[in-house]
Amino acid sequence: MPIKSKIRTIPDYPKKGIMFRDITTLIKDPVGFRLVIDSLTQRYIKGNIVFDIIVGIESRGFIIGGALAYTLGKGFVPIRKKGKLPAEKVTQEYILEYGTDIIEIHKDAIVKGSRVLIVDDLLATGGTALAAAALIEKLGATVVELCFIVDLPDVGGIKKLVSKGYKVFTLTKFKGD
Amino acid sequence: MPIKSKIRTIPDYPKKGIMFRDITTLIKDPVGFRLVIDSLTQRYIKGNIVFDIIVGIESRGFIIGGALAYTLGKGFVPIRKKGKLPAEKVTQEYILEYGTDIIEIHKDAIVKGSRVLIVDDLLATGGTALAAAALIEKLGATVVELCFIVDLPDVGGIKKLVSKGYKVFTLTKFKGD
Repeated sequence: MPIKSKIRTIPDYPKKGIMFRDITTLIKDPVGFRLVIDSLTQRYIKGNIVFDIIVGIESRGFIIGGALAYTLGKGFVPIRKKGKLPAEKVTQEYILEYGTDIIEIHKDAIVKGSRVLIVDDLLATGGTALAAAALIEKLGATVVELCFIVDLPDVGGIKKLVSKGYKVFTLTKFKGD
Repeated sequence: MPIKSKIRTIPDYPKKGIMFRDITTLIKDPVGFRLVIDSLTQRYIKGNIVFDIIVGIESRGFIIGGALAYTLGKGFVPIRKKGKLPAEKVTQEYILEYGTDIIEIHKDAIVKGSRVLIVDDLLATGGTALAAAALIEKLGATVVELCFIVDLPDVGGIKKLVSKGYKVFTLTKFKGD
């Protein structure tokens, strides 16, 4: 599994007991980065999964989502942390382990009725992903699929997303390791 | 100038007197996004400007830099805001209008002696760009060129970068408008 083997694990980051999966070692490698983008492109270029636009979640979702928007000939829309977008926006609060956070999208970024592919690097608790999907739906658009490089199924995000009816695609996963 | 015409200007953001140039309207458009990435690809694919790796500056530099790394078959390395990178890193402080800020890069992200292309969306004062170049040089690598979608020459960043010997490429500019 060449994609998984290029992901670095940093134990006890950001705190004791967490195995942090660091994709920077995968994407700094030209072959690794190309493999990631080509694998996702192959999934979506066939036209079985129809969508109009790609939304990437700040910040690592911008790297993957930007490249994928290019290969698939789509536009790219960023979902950003609070206070980063300059024009009129909709916001969504979501719960973290301690406290809450907010993400935002420009109101005019997505046309009502659009079909959206959401892209991020890693699926853990699914909190950010669910909030991102909520933003798309607030704009009257539909989330066709959420795609990630890495899934951490032990943390439960994928179960949560699927139980709410979302389609999820991931390239690799760390389960019990 | 189709690239420039798709960039939205937001007056008095983030504060009175500033004309904010918003590239989100350019990149959400599939033709606009493709035009940006293809224009940069055309510049670098000929092989006259030789480099080994692409470094993008958080966050909008990730969208452009990620796509460009893909088209040029290079790896991608992020320069991030303070506290975002999980492994050993070097840091660079730089001066803002009020106070200072810090950006960081992983120590093992760039091999000593590498030739680096730095990518970001917009060149204003050049403060972040200079700090990014300093990070590359701290790792013993060379900045071959810095490229941006938008130049704001009235703010003086391009003059500052060029006076320090850096090569700069920009796709479009807003000057006196």
